[in-house]
Amino acid sequence: MGFAVLRGQDLDHLAIVECGVIATPKGGSGAERLVALADGLDGLIGRHALRAVAVERLFFNRNVRTAMAVSEARGVALVCAARAGVPVFEYTPHQVKLAVTGYGKADKKQVQQMLSLLLHLSEPIRQDDTADAVAVALCHAQGLVASAALERAR
Amino acid sequence: MGFAVLRGQDLDHLAIVECGVIATPKGGSGAERLVALADGLDGLIGRHALRAVAVERLFFNRNVRTAMAVSEARGVALVCAARAGVPVFEYTPHQVKLAVTGYGKADKKQVQQMLSLLLHLSEPIRQDDTADAVAVALCHAQGLVASAALERAR
Repeated sequence: MGFAVLRGQDLDHLAIVECGVIATPKGGSGAERLVALADGLDGLIGRHALRAVAVERLFFNRNVRTAMAVSEARGVALVCAARAGVPVFEYTPHQVKLAVTGYGKADKKQVQQMLSLLLHLSEPIRQDDTADAVAVALCHAQGLVASAALERAR
Repeated sequence: MGFAVLRGQDLDHLAIVECGVIATPKGGSGAERLVALADGLDGLIGRHALRAVAVERLFFNRNVRTAMAVSEARGVALVCAARAGVPVFEYTPHQVKLAVTGYGKADKKQVQQMLSLLLHLSEPIRQDDTADAVAVALCHAQGLVASAALERAR
């Protein structure tokens, strides 16, 4: 499962604190892999004073087996965040792409390019799950900034 | 989510210690409902010295939305059991029906009737999720007894 921790006062100064993929034992049972995921997430949440956790909400219509495996992991992630008292937000892939690129049907390459631009990265994030996680986090950050601006305007 | 705790030295003396449904807050977010589920399962595992947890393995091909919600709950259940150090076993609905009724395509009613018979219940279990949980637990118990008999025969 990809993850990304962002920090910053405003969108121009957002930076990646930590990102990557939580590895799970390849040969392990489903339960073992999910426990490794939960341990990784608990560690991550413990290391950072998170203000929010943003998770991708998926709408599958093709591979049900994949949808079920991803949903098991999603369920574990939601519990890890909620039990730590961190509010959880969910965004669809469409919302994420729209927020990051301005286009809801952007492809992976376009999302990666925009992430490099918006987060001033010297190297693009080539690992797909990591890039997805950074994009979801950025989507949430943009929403926060927009809400704050609206609040000030009132 | 339905649950059932069985106890007994052999199949003729199996009894239900506790069974029912872990309720989750209807109005709550997905994360809140999953935390309620995790809390309920942790409580259940803490109250009983479980030797094993048996979980239904699902193969969906119709409602993906349902499959995803059930899978989120399944992921949480697997982590609760595994983190408590209780070995987890998974059975398909086909295996469960075959074990309980001798027929892999038995309907709910037939499963309920066999549960009443095998567990000497004075009243059938009418709640579907509870009956499913009792059937999964019974399926696992039968497998244990069969393994033990094979072991002795060697």
